[in-house]
Amino acid sequence: MDPDIGEFELIERYFTFSENTSRPYVGDDCAYLDFGTRTLAVTGDTLVAGVHFFADDDPADIAFKALGVNLSDLAVCGAKPSGFVLQISLNAVSKDWLESFSSALKTLSIRYACPLIGGDTVALPEGAPLSISITAFGEPFARVTRAGAVSGDDIWVTGYLGLAGAALTLKKAGKAIPDALLERLIRPEARLALGQKIADRVSAACDVSDGFISDLNHILLASGVGARLDFASFPVHRELQNQEGELGTFGIERAILAGGDDYELVFCAAPQYREAFKALSTAAIPVTRVGVVTREPGLEILHLSAETQNALDSLKGYEHRVSLHA
Amino acid sequence: MDPDIGEFELIERYFTFSENTSRPYVGDDCAYLDFGTRTLAVTGDTLVAGVHFFADDDPADIAFKALGVNLSDLAVCGAKPSGFVLQISLNAVSKDWLESFSSALKTLSIRYACPLIGGDTVALPEGAPLSISITAFGEPFARVTRAGAVSGDDIWVTGYLGLAGAALTLKKAGKAIPDALLERLIRPEARLALGQKIADRVSAACDVSDGFISDLNHILLASGVGARLDFASFPVHRELQNQEGELGTFGIERAILAGGDDYELVFCAAPQYREAFKALSTAAIPVTRVGVVTREPGLEILHLSAETQNALDSLKGYEHRVSLHA
Repeated sequence: MDPDIGEFELIERYFTFSENTSRPYVGDDCAYLDFGTRTLAVTGDTLVAGVHFFADDDPADIAFKALGVNLSDLAVCGAKPSGFVLQISLNAVSKDWLESFSSALKTLSIRYACPLIGGDTVALPEGAPLSISITAFGEPFARVTRAGAVSGDDIWVTGYLGLAGAALTLKKAGKAIPDALLERLIRPEARLALGQKIADRVSAACDVSDGFISDLNHILLASGVGARLDFASFPVHRELQNQEGELGTFGIERAILAGGDDYELVFCAAPQYREAFKALSTAAIPVTRVGVVTREPGLEILHLSAETQNALDSLKGYEHRVSLHA
Repeated sequence: MDPDIGEFELIERYFTFSENTSRPYVGDDCAYLDFGTRTLAVTGDTLVAGVHFFADDDPADIAFKALGVNLSDLAVCGAKPSGFVLQISLNAVSKDWLESFSSALKTLSIRYACPLIGGDTVALPEGAPLSISITAFGEPFARVTRAGAVSGDDIWVTGYLGLAGAALTLKKAGKAIPDALLERLIRPEARLALGQKIADRVSAACDVSDGFISDLNHILLASGVGARLDFASFPVHRELQNQEGELGTFGIERAILAGGDDYELVFCAAPQYREAFKALSTAAIPVTRVGVVTREPGLEILHLSAETQNALDSLKGYEHRVSLHA
């Protein structure tokens, strides 16, 4: 087996130029670019066929996800989107594909008032996978990072976790996927409106993209704290609960804690904001207190099945690994 | 043969969302993002192994070029660099490769005070080509576009053209490459300092990346004008002239007019600025008046060899072409 290196370690080891970087490269959903008295939030995510989506996925879904994952990063700091740059490498796609992709991108761009302002296209060599890099900009409501959580803070999460993860599991098994689950997998809706309402009150936040435990861990590590969660307090979507026959208890708990692709927000905040956050909760998009930040590092989760409890270490969520040769 | 589509047509047809874009997507080196009273210049270029560089090129050279081509776009509007985002997709590279790449990127980042502020890494499937997307930001000195040239404007170019193009021709032929030519191919130096001195006086400008004729054509088409050039006025680098035995007259003229990868600036300006621009010219980086903008569309070039004159239409410079299937 080749030696390999995790994405986060790779970034930390090779792409953290601390001398000239105002914010650490690793650890925040957005970088903050100061000029004059203004600050711009900047985020960039790349999606590659065969890695982040299937090459034969609906091009409209690919467009929706490519921009959506970046808008989700902007939501973390409550940013008002300013625009995005598209760098797309492709070849041998059909005109229908391009029309469908660009039409969906335009729809989403207009919906979020986030104009396409520039970019680049590359004609790939034959066989190379389609690749889409989007860099998105916004005016942040507050300078949110992952590093500010303190012992005693509440831990909150928006929406219902696990829908996209369960949808992907069902898809891979060739099983029917309920609409509520599929929608979250192919059309993740960034929590921009909610982000704008909470950003100035959170001590730390990130979006849930790799999986809840993995993303919460980013906050805990960056803040030097631990967490105690009560799984019984997590909202479980009815359509996900209905899949217990297909997925089992472990499958549902795993989807919620480590499914990934949720594009919800996880955030920490002082207890004084409990009522304010509860007031933002709706049946469609609950805002739920799921635990507390502890002084001791580590993650404890109450009311979990024994099977999931035993598997916690392996549920750290998805991390790309890069092969390095000597 | 597959039907195919040029890069510029592809962008115009599928990625120009005119309703919500303040500047046209095609045609300018930088997009301008307004917020409050400030403007940010934004540019993004993607380099892919096998398309823009050879997979076995020195990783330091790849890093230098990946950031350099973006800095060159910023130079067009005389921008002071603010930072850049790196999105890199890779796999099966060595630790030495990563160290060399990141070290060169850091060196350049510090030299131009352009910090790495964020980004993304992707672990590619086996066999997929290394891909580097950089998005760079800067505070523009002036809002330079390609659309403002008017009849009677002078046409200027910075530096010596054709060095990189000739170096590539020699490299492909397995011949020795003089240092002055090789340097321009592998370590293009963005004209940031010059850009800051000319940006508020030009009527239109772009950088020379696809090839001089191709890039000047961008200006002519965007401005709805033509040009008459005098090839005798173009500065020819001594080391390029020395290659006449290897490349022939046609080879040298082709390198200058259509070699590409020059990362110099071509710009148009009213005759009143002649003395000011001449004063910027040095032996190392001449600033040279090479022609005049004409009311009639089209491009006329005086004092060119008959062979090059006959081949003018085929010297439009490099454009990626994307295969489209039905």
